[in-house]
Amino acid sequence: MSGTVYLVGAGPGAPDLLTLRAARLLARADIVFHDALVHPETLALAERAIKVAVGKRSGKHSTAQRFINKQLIDAAQKYPTVVRLKGGDPMLFGRAQEEIDALIEARIPLEIVPGISAAFAASAELQCSLTRRALARSVVFATPREAAGSKQNEWAKAAAAADTAVLYMAAGEAQSVSDALIANGVPASRAVVIVENATGESRKVIPTDVGHLPAAAQHVGDGPALVMVGEVYAAVQALGIDLPEAYLQLR
Amino acid sequence: MSGTVYLVGAGPGAPDLLTLRAARLLARADIVFHDALVHPETLALAERAIKVAVGKRSGKHSTAQRFINKQLIDAAQKYPTVVRLKGGDPMLFGRAQEEIDALIEARIPLEIVPGISAAFAASAELQCSLTRRALARSVVFATPREAAGSKQNEWAKAAAAADTAVLYMAAGEAQSVSDALIANGVPASRAVVIVENATGESRKVIPTDVGHLPAAAQHVGDGPALVMVGEVYAAVQALGIDLPEAYLQLR
Repeated sequence: MSGTVYLVGAGPGAPDLLTLRAARLLARADIVFHDALVHPETLALAERAIKVAVGKRSGKHSTAQRFINKQLIDAAQKYPTVVRLKGGDPMLFGRAQEEIDALIEARIPLEIVPGISAAFAASAELQCSLTRRALARSVVFATPREAAGSKQNEWAKAAAAADTAVLYMAAGEAQSVSDALIANGVPASRAVVIVENATGESRKVIPTDVGHLPAAAQHVGDGPALVMVGEVYAAVQALGIDLPEAYLQLR
Repeated sequence: MSGTVYLVGAGPGAPDLLTLRAARLLARADIVFHDALVHPETLALAERAIKVAVGKRSGKHSTAQRFINKQLIDAAQKYPTVVRLKGGDPMLFGRAQEEIDALIEARIPLEIVPGISAAFAASAELQCSLTRRALARSVVFATPREAAGSKQNEWAKAAAAADTAVLYMAAGEAQSVSDALIANGVPASRAVVIVENATGESRKVIPTDVGHLPAAAQHVGDGPALVMVGEVYAAVQALGIDLPEAYLQLR
């Protein structure tokens, strides 16, 4: 008899944006494997659990992922309730499938609990809907981070074809993101907003446009950031950051 | 002094997929305006609130929307805590912007609480990630429902350009959805899964492909359904529905 592994979305950061189901699971978890970015108050809900941080370092992803898979399988042999807690929603850019496939192969019972992805939390804070009647009826979520074997800049074609695009893990390579969008037909004047630390206390909102994205991204700090692109962002105001007057006039 | 309007995502259906923040707001709400599809247990969290159903009927959307806007503004003059509860996440296909703009214009304090959109709940139930390393790195959420003034089938270009596409409100027009995807270069053999009533007790999962989507959609009932398109769905199995052997061999 093996325990069950629950792959749980921790949401965008603010601890009260966790689901009720996730909170109840954490309360009865025996062991929790969590990403580096999960809020301490969220972890504190797992009162009786052993907590294991399994943050990955870039450049060593594959090795680390195999090790996490093994840790989950081993824990399920030992404990009834194993929680794997991932920032945001586990099914979007979370590499969840590698963990799911390993658990299914090992015949470990598995349940997945969805979470609020950062794009939805940022939209709520901006009070700016991802879709809008007659203006935006498609939204793409993409990441410019290239995996081995993936086609160069395929993500930019999808981002250019949708009315609204939310780019995860994109602020660190703003120049190539801007270049790829423009090469795929997105006007340099299309509105962009960068949101760093959505729902966190040190949240920053930096309005710009596709052409000025590289300059704007220099104001982004160490926190996780979204690059949101689309006409719906034309009226968004800066928040949590003092931008020079000259910068704001660029838009 | 006016009250605050909270635009709150009720999540995909299961009452425990609500956020902690939403549950706390409902508990102290004075009045709740809710969509038709919100679960009775979710509404029951609003113990002390007046509940007002504001479901829209198709064909009368604009009139109904203006009336909802007015109801929210009037309620905020009278009550400290007004909750507008919308299925899923309010910022995706929820027409939230019309309510937001009306509230801002009326200078009513406004906060938005994100919710789990159906695509994430369905992905969790299918145990099938929206993205997958080296296979799917972009996801589009779109709807084929045409609004007045929108460009014909623009949604299909975005759906064709992304690795994974989740189409909301699409099962009822499966033939034109299939035609539009194929016309935009999606292979007829690309895997599709239709998920009806994600997280509900009467959930159905119907695997098919783009070419056979119209035939498969005939098995969809009255519940809200997602049409999910992409290579990631190639191995999904039917659930909650008895499909004829001949049907399953089509894939």
